[in-house]
Amino acid sequence: MENIKLYKNERIDDLQYKGLKIIQNKEGFCFGIDSVLLSDFAKSIKPNSTVLDIGTGTGIIGLLLCRKTELLKIYGVEIQKDVAEMAKRSVRLNQLEGKFEIINCNVKDILDFLPAHSIDCIVTNPPYKKANTGIKSEDEKQLISRHEVKCTLEDVIEKSSNLLKDKGEFFMVHRAERMVDIMCALREYRLEPKNIRFVHSKQREKPNLILVKAIKHANPFLKIDKPLIIYDEEGNYTEEINQIYGRK
Amino acid sequence: MENIKLYKNERIDDLQYKGLKIIQNKEGFCFGIDSVLLSDFAKSIKPNSTVLDIGTGTGIIGLLLCRKTELLKIYGVEIQKDVAEMAKRSVRLNQLEGKFEIINCNVKDILDFLPAHSIDCIVTNPPYKKANTGIKSEDEKQLISRHEVKCTLEDVIEKSSNLLKDKGEFFMVHRAERMVDIMCALREYRLEPKNIRFVHSKQREKPNLILVKAIKHANPFLKIDKPLIIYDEEGNYTEEINQIYGRK
Repeated sequence: MENIKLYKNERIDDLQYKGLKIIQNKEGFCFGIDSVLLSDFAKSIKPNSTVLDIGTGTGIIGLLLCRKTELLKIYGVEIQKDVAEMAKRSVRLNQLEGKFEIINCNVKDILDFLPAHSIDCIVTNPPYKKANTGIKSEDEKQLISRHEVKCTLEDVIEKSSNLLKDKGEFFMVHRAERMVDIMCALREYRLEPKNIRFVHSKQREKPNLILVKAIKHANPFLKIDKPLIIYDEEGNYTEEINQIYGRK
Repeated sequence: MENIKLYKNERIDDLQYKGLKIIQNKEGFCFGIDSVLLSDFAKSIKPNSTVLDIGTGTGIIGLLLCRKTELLKIYGVEIQKDVAEMAKRSVRLNQLEGKFEIINCNVKDILDFLPAHSIDCIVTNPPYKKANTGIKSEDEKQLISRHEVKCTLEDVIEKSSNLLKDKGEFFMVHRAERMVDIMCALREYRLEPKNIRFVHSKQREKPNLILVKAIKHANPFLKIDKPLIIYDEEGNYTEEINQIYGRK
């Protein structure tokens, strides 16, 4: 295997999924379950699709999609230079050069890199929190990845609409509480929400996350799936989560 | 008790809730659990509120709210003349004349009866289905109450926005699948969705209904409650449903 350099606080983790490995930063820049759930939610991506992951971070979603689907090419756009560099090293670590390309830019400038109406499918786990809300004691890296300081939900949706082909697919994971913003922005930019699945930490609790599939220029008709439950009553992963993680 | 006339196929049902009775038509014009759930969802209505029920039908929501809350006055608008007449008789049957007034008109004409910005709270269980969709073998009464043939979701929301005072409250029950239409129309007419609760027939199944509370001119901040489950695994009402029906 090619010798991959690790910087301070970085480590290589085995994803325990079809041989995938990923570089993460122990001081907080690690992927979360939301990315894993989104990759699974989006696994219906058609063979030979050109895919874009907006806010790719560690590259987790792209890595998993390279193994879960028969996609042709995936681009990952990441605004933070050192995070993008780390993701590039994870791509090399998995010998996915040529298939998974990291673009280091703000999503607002993505049309400088990719032509309009050229993408079959977009996946995104964008910053969840509005700028100037909540605790901002996090370091700058986490701030940018979690808060809408560099791009808003509307930026992500507007650019996605520009980039997708007619009937192109858009998959997003977000906080359930942002649902109204999500629905209204999607419809405004002609990405019609077609499937929604709520993710609940436990069965009897409120949903924490929302998984949304929208299709560009589709007619309105929404299907809501059964809830996705993360933990059972004993606090263990449910059977479905174990399956998603490839542990069953 | 006053002698209340019953027409063909009508019967008086005991609601088994604080002495309430209701007239229903055995040939199909009966209230459903959705109205009962909405009445419970809206029970936080402030004392001395002026309330409007849009699409009042049998009058079930207004009758329950007269007992569950300290409202000052409730209007019920019902487009179908004979259904409105039936609701008026239920009002008399419960000696609620003066408190609960039935208006027989299309909600689109409601501003001929009530002044703009005069209502504290609106409750509505509107027709669920788009016009020209689904099975329309139902008789005309049911067609009008279930399909958007006489008024659309947007009509209901637009008129509600006109009628509500600043910071007035709007409570609706609807099909979960219409969620995108609901969220977008509410925001368009400045009724900001603040609370949502999904209703699931059973715990592991997809949500069937959505309960929404919106506030006129409020800032965006949505809270999603834990799911409301109707049946337990054995097919019996859950404890919460029994409580809502006043059976515990």
